[in-house]
Amino acid sequence: MRTYRLVTACPDRVGIVAKISGFLATYNGWITEASHHSDQASGWFFMRYELRADSLPFELDDFRRAFAPIAREFDMHWQIADSAVKKRVVLMASKESHCLADLLHRWHSDELDCEITCVIANHDDLRGMVEWHGIPYHHVPVDPNDKQPAFAEVERLIEAHEADAVVLARYMQILPPSLCERLRHRVINIHHSFLPSFVGAKPYHQAAQRGVKLIGATCHYVTEELDAGPIIEQDLIRVSHKDSVEDMVRKGKDCEKMVLARGLRYHLEDRVLVHGNRTVVFD
Amino acid sequence: MRTYRLVTACPDRVGIVAKISGFLATYNGWITEASHHSDQASGWFFMRYELRADSLPFELDDFRRAFAPIAREFDMHWQIADSAVKKRVVLMASKESHCLADLLHRWHSDELDCEITCVIANHDDLRGMVEWHGIPYHHVPVDPNDKQPAFAEVERLIEAHEADAVVLARYMQILPPSLCERLRHRVINIHHSFLPSFVGAKPYHQAAQRGVKLIGATCHYVTEELDAGPIIEQDLIRVSHKDSVEDMVRKGKDCEKMVLARGLRYHLEDRVLVHGNRTVVFD
Amino acid sequence: MRTYRLVTACPDRVGIVAKISGFLATYNGWITEASHHSDQASGWFFMRYELRADSLPFELDDFRRAFAPIAREFDMHWQIADSAVKKRVVLMASKESHCLADLLHRWHSDELDCEITCVIANHDDLRGMVEWHGIPYHHVPVDPNDKQPAFAEVERLIEAHEADAVVLARYMQILPPSLCERLRHRVINIHHSFLPSFVGAKPYHQAAQRGVKLIGATCHYVTEELDAGPIIEQDLIRVSHKDSVEDMVRKGKDCEKMVLARGLRYHLEDRVLVHGNRTVVFD
Amino acid sequence: MRTYRLVTACPDRVGIVAKISGFLATYNGWITEASHHSDQASGWFFMRYELRADSLPFELDDFRRAFAPIAREFDMHWQIADSAVKKRVVLMASKESHCLADLLHRWHSDELDCEITCVIANHDDLRGMVEWHGIPYHHVPVDPNDKQPAFAEVERLIEAHEADAVVLARYMQILPPSLCERLRHRVINIHHSFLPSFVGAKPYHQAAQRGVKLIGATCHYVTEELDAGPIIEQDLIRVSHKDSVEDMVRKGKDCEKMVLARGLRYHLEDRVLVHGNRTVVFD
Repeated sequence: MRTYRLVTACPDRVGIVAKISGFLATYNGWITEASHHSDQASGWFFMRYELRADSLPFELDDFRRAFAPIAREFDMHWQIADSAVKKRVVLMASKESHCLADLLHRWHSDELDCEITCVIANHDDLRGMVEWHGIPYHHVPVDPNDKQPAFAEVERLIEAHEADAVVLARYMQILPPSLCERLRHRVINIHHSFLPSFVGAKPYHQAAQRGVKLIGATCHYVTEELDAGPIIEQDLIRVSHKDSVEDMVRKGKDCEKMVLARGLRYHLEDRVLVHGNRTVVFD
Repeated sequence: MRTYRLVTACPDRVGIVAKISGFLATYNGWITEASHHSDQASGWFFMRYELRADSLPFELDDFRRAFAPIAREFDMHWQIADSAVKKRVVLMASKESHCLADLLHRWHSDELDCEITCVIANHDDLRGMVEWHGIPYHHVPVDPNDKQPAFAEVERLIEAHEADAVVLARYMQILPPSLCERLRHRVINIHHSFLPSFVGAKPYHQAAQRGVKLIGATCHYVTEELDAGPIIEQDLIRVSHKDSVEDMVRKGKDCEKMVLARGLRYHLEDRVLVHGNRTVVFD
Repeated sequence: MRTYRLVTACPDRVGIVAKISGFLATYNGWITEASHHSDQASGWFFMRYELRADSLPFELDDFRRAFAPIAREFDMHWQIADSAVKKRVVLMASKESHCLADLLHRWHSDELDCEITCVIANHDDLRGMVEWHGIPYHHVPVDPNDKQPAFAEVERLIEAHEADAVVLARYMQILPPSLCERLRHRVINIHHSFLPSFVGAKPYHQAAQRGVKLIGATCHYVTEELDAGPIIEQDLIRVSHKDSVEDMVRKGKDCEKMVLARGLRYHLEDRVLVHGNRTVVFD
Repeated sequence: MRTYRLVTACPDRVGIVAKISGFLATYNGWITEASHHSDQASGWFFMRYELRADSLPFELDDFRRAFAPIAREFDMHWQIADSAVKKRVVLMASKESHCLADLLHRWHSDELDCEITCVIANHDDLRGMVEWHGIPYHHVPVDPNDKQPAFAEVERLIEAHEADAVVLARYMQILPPSLCERLRHRVINIHHSFLPSFVGAKPYHQAAQRGVKLIGATCHYVTEELDAGPIIEQDLIRVSHKDSVEDMVRKGKDCEKMVLARGLRYHLEDRVLVHGNRTVVFD
């Protein structure tokens, strides 16, 4: 079923729901899913509606025009998206295949509703797997002594592919701040620890060193500060003294895959609202 | 903060949210929490709003009068409750203390927002614990050869205490169908298995026999059919070949306590809507 | 590191560990992993040792000859396996790709230590994916009016491939009892429910109907009785009223993949000991 | 069943299991539970045996004398404990009752096998609950400007009660380094975060600030460095944007109680072996 997804955020006050739902009812809009959140701490109100596209008498442009005055009245940040327009996703990877293979399979089996426009990788190892799926593979090696040219090419590719989302599927390189800034809330990373524990390199080694009893993964938007962006989704799995670092790496992969897939899905379905450095996720 | 909790269920159609939120906005009602669910399978729409009591110009009786025409228009099942009016709860127990002690402590430490009017038990073992909390304890032994007099007394006590909810905190007796019928959706049981697995007696023994790798607990409303009522909450914990039945009983207790406490909390906060034999839980 | 895996089960009594570990020490055998279980209920003792192959002065045949008298003395069921000899695995599938793709990727990325000798499927849909991995694909359609020829062919293929394990990766067909009997404790199935709940067809529909709050998956050895064989591994994930049957199917897939992969891994590493209808899993 | 619990740790080499189990078999010792761990990273070997006390021909003193030469041969750290000798536990608390009430109930219902010799608290709020259980309550207020006298009194009480274990059940005061040092691996703390995230004060506020999707609790041995001691047990529960800090505090309590109870149980049953800053937990 084709739906429109209306997402709004504004300072909380009386009458927001009435105004918006009244507007929708005026046009006979059928709400199939409605989520609200009043954040007591910040005094903001967040909302996401899914509407049957065929219940409304107009297309998105008309919707936008008609809704704009209401949005202004309430100082809303807002957007509306059409479920029939697939988001364009660029995947970035390195040598590790587990997250990439997982996303490709979900896409291939129609579980992940998006267009994967290309894969960019700093190694050539995963080309065969990607190309079997009929997806272009761009090998952009990163020279450790001069990363700038590689990131310029990465940026060029992302723009050329008109990416709505960039997914770092264990890309293992730190994007330059300017790129993070430009693609704010559009670059999704999977970090292989339960953040804020074990920021940076080799988190499973850090976890083994500290002797934690669970290891985790965190899906978050990338910001200039390493591993510090708004968290979309997290999960953990149990480990014990029996698990070597290698075991943790292996077990952690399953956690990474699941957390990244869930986080990306929320993003693709316009379920993630960022406020400050935190997210509202209407799952 | 004192709130009113408005809960509605009706056949889904366009305009419900607009009508209700419009009604509330008319009276300047401030929504602090809003939950909606459109059930595709049944075509029903469920809703729960929490409203700041001090934002509305009238008390609940006036609210009810003003809202009634809207409710009729949409064929709603509905209710509104005042968070300042504590629900009256009767706890029922047998010899096992873990669920009872857990609920008593949550109540004692102001975590559970209700009035515990009394404890009814078919044994006298737990009297000291209950009376230390200042709660009346009624010992109503059940004669296995003639249970009717005991259940008549139980029913009398429940009525005398004007119970909004009856919690079977491992009561271990099956209530007569007439009582289940009378107290429909007001009697909450904790069953020590992940239903529908292991209905009836000795579920941990059944679980050990079958060799399952997790054991669970289920909080549900009691109906005439044993362990088959609408499920409010469930959870499980991992076991292994190392766990004897006694270990399962011990580990399972923690699961039972948590699941019952969560389920009761949902009920007390008017978060559980029953539709057919299933629940919508706006947690 | 190449290891030998010695697995024993026998009636419990004093001196078993001393006898076995004494035997091993005599030959300078280095134990890298040792697991024991004394089952109080049955009075049986289970054991699994991993030994550094290079610490022992002989190969497996000599080991077997030397160990046989001890095994006889204690009435042991026992076996020893060489980690360097990969087990031969036949995968069986239907149209659903998620479990198959998951296992293939784990194998392809060297996470799953086995040889996948072929895939047998009753539909031809997954051929491309399988053949990309360089694995033979046998399409054996099952005629619903006469399944016998198909299962004869399946049996022939399993024998021709000298399978140590057959994995039903959502094969969706019930194997004939004679084949189950023949391949006792070698056929691994993934059932898409938390058994013993929702045996048989369409378990997610059954789960939605009952209104459970978690859905699960069960990896078990196949026996003549449907979905009743010894359970190797299980897990669950949370669902709510928001999840339609389709959502359950989607979420459940992740659970199925993980549970099957873990269960198969235990089997491949000789970590599963079956006793009656239950398993000891030395994870 | 009365058992002896033999726990050893030593550099790994060939023949340890054979030597120890041979020793036990010589005296007809019946092993009811055996756990081993070879730590590849450190090259150490850890072991825990439970033995039926009635199967051995001598008491613990004789056992110790007979075993000492073996221990010396392998440079073992070792100890043997009698399950019939209850460990003496001092509980310390402040104003928050949830962990204390939970432990008291587990002890009261014979789930926790120990003697609770007294409760020490820096406030007087929990006296009634403690004394109802028949346990002495010592109110030792801590003067924020001069904590020394209070901690001197705490130390005196711990010594007077001959505590085998001291449990900080949300005590909220930092013990002086000298006391930590003296009671090394005998003081158990529950920290209300998933360490190493959110060390120090107000971890739930820190968690809300960071926007994590799960909150946790950590049971660890207290060392001089705050919240940095060897971790015994951890767990987490899911939260969302809907949860205020107050909700996190409430939900977190359940996690704290469970994690502390499990950690203490492991300690009481001699299941925790500390090596460096990490633990081997034979659960």
